[in-house]
Amino acid sequence: MSDDIFVTLAHGNGGRFMRALVDGIFARHLANPTLDTTADAVTLPLPAGEIMVTTDGFIVKPLEFPGGDIGSLAVHGTVNDLAVAGATPVYLTLNAFIEEGLELALLDRVVASMAESAKACGVRIACGDTKVLQRGEGGGLYLATTGVGVRKPGLRLGLDRIEEGDRILVSGPVGDHGTAVLLAREQFGLKGDLASDSASVLPLAQSLWDMSGLRFMRDPTRGGLATVMHDIAKATGLTVRLDETAIPFHPPVRGICDMLGYDPMFLACEGRVVAVVAADEADAALGRWRALPQGETAALIGAVKGDAGHVVLETDIGGERLIEELEDEPLPRIC
Amino acid sequence: MSDDIFVTLAHGNGGRFMRALVDGIFARHLANPTLDTTADAVTLPLPAGEIMVTTDGFIVKPLEFPGGDIGSLAVHGTVNDLAVAGATPVYLTLNAFIEEGLELALLDRVVASMAESAKACGVRIACGDTKVLQRGEGGGLYLATTGVGVRKPGLRLGLDRIEEGDRILVSGPVGDHGTAVLLAREQFGLKGDLASDSASVLPLAQSLWDMSGLRFMRDPTRGGLATVMHDIAKATGLTVRLDETAIPFHPPVRGICDMLGYDPMFLACEGRVVAVVAADEADAALGRWRALPQGETAALIGAVKGDAGHVVLETDIGGERLIEELEDEPLPRIC
Repeated sequence: MSDDIFVTLAHGNGGRFMRALVDGIFARHLANPTLDTTADAVTLPLPAGEIMVTTDGFIVKPLEFPGGDIGSLAVHGTVNDLAVAGATPVYLTLNAFIEEGLELALLDRVVASMAESAKACGVRIACGDTKVLQRGEGGGLYLATTGVGVRKPGLRLGLDRIEEGDRILVSGPVGDHGTAVLLAREQFGLKGDLASDSASVLPLAQSLWDMSGLRFMRDPTRGGLATVMHDIAKATGLTVRLDETAIPFHPPVRGICDMLGYDPMFLACEGRVVAVVAADEADAALGRWRALPQGETAALIGAVKGDAGHVVLETDIGGERLIEELEDEPLPRIC
Repeated sequence: MSDDIFVTLAHGNGGRFMRALVDGIFARHLANPTLDTTADAVTLPLPAGEIMVTTDGFIVKPLEFPGGDIGSLAVHGTVNDLAVAGATPVYLTLNAFIEEGLELALLDRVVASMAESAKACGVRIACGDTKVLQRGEGGGLYLATTGVGVRKPGLRLGLDRIEEGDRILVSGPVGDHGTAVLLAREQFGLKGDLASDSASVLPLAQSLWDMSGLRFMRDPTRGGLATVMHDIAKATGLTVRLDETAIPFHPPVRGICDMLGYDPMFLACEGRVVAVVAADEADAALGRWRALPQGETAALIGAVKGDAGHVVLETDIGGERLIEELEDEPLPRIC
């Protein structure tokens, strides 16, 4: 058994090799006072307050890409879902489904990256589980993370708080993650120096938590910015009007999507956040975001106006077009 | 797109088909006041007490087998990890990795089974996430569940509480799950009416929670009973002595394992629990288990004796043999 280089089925059987995998890679990088790999369940000391949870699965391919990897993505994705819900993330749990034959060195890099991201976000990996899949059945590596956080007292955010006249902000250029992963696959023969935006949006989210006019936040991951706009239109029955010229894009994202026929409005971001804010606080919210390094290019991109329940793009040539809901899969295994 | 019969990549893209999958299968079966499929994170109202978490992944193949399926298994596995740690399970989160081409009717049955098991265990699915994997990459369906529970106040269980002289109990016959899944694969051309023991061990665990002599509990899943014994020997440095004649097995488990060369001591159970109890309370603990329908054939199977750190089986012919730690994979994708 080439147990020094590749993952084998014996790494999944509950015995000595599994223990070596868990201790040698997962526990080594993710060690913290809560994690106890010999226990069936662990106790979570939590600050007072309402507890929130979220969970997310990660199947991105390739496992490493410019700007991140599946490990950092799995931390940011779940941290971000708590952050946009108004909660400070405290713990994550981790599931790893590892394909037989995966390079141990690659797994080690991914778990190290996960540890680094978790530390930067102030969260601990509280517990985890590993399963090994037979060669040909597992796509390399899938991760799932569940996040536990504590909600800021008094903060209530939700689609049901959105009112006509509210403004819509985005914290930075959209579609970077989807486009960067697409380039990293090299199947299109394109090269570029575009990096994923994979990052924690916690500082951006937190910067607005005390604003009474903050209605709702969401990170535009699968389905991209357009899908968040549809979530808003569907939940409220109101029309979302976006100003095409105001939506920030990195120029290569536009260029690559034009060439390949993708609409970057539907491509995943993994480090951006959309906020819906009362009109009279929109400029203040924008100012707070622009004062943060992650929000320098934040923009006011639209408003909630009218009751047709549509998503309308006001184009740069003065026209309008309806943005339809995503139907076909634009890009599998993007996050 | 045969969107009425099989899962397609479009079911994973964040758009309309994903919403249909989530609403039509997951939310329909798993609906409860906590679950909100339009939210990024949900609030968990929890009773007072220390919060415990655990997480587990499930890759069993076939997805349905006599006595259960991957859905009921994913509920029981995580409920059981909280139960043996002394916590009452309250919520689960769910990750589903679904392979393109999976029959929607099968997915529907699995999620319905999950809902039924969750209801029987008194837990709610608080939130979930679905990802769709390209055909050939996903093995049909993988699940991960994270459990949140509340620890019984004052109860402290752990490997570190085990003392020399303690007795070891098991709640029922071992190896049923592993053997039943093996038979269900039909690759061995064997038939039998053996069913998995997949079940909640919460009533069994709870029945001992108030005993001061209760040291430690564990459900013998991957690696089976023998691996739990090794966990004890390794953590304590003490020797575990088992009485072969006392260990309960269903006769077909013995017979099938003899034929195929497996040792049932290493095969997974999914509805049994092992308890380590102070000698003077062992009979009382056994009596409590036998009074429960899940524990009718519970048995006192051994003791912690001597400090060599071995696992020793006292055989039915009066001899002794060392039980080694599991090395090779006996049976992949068993749980």
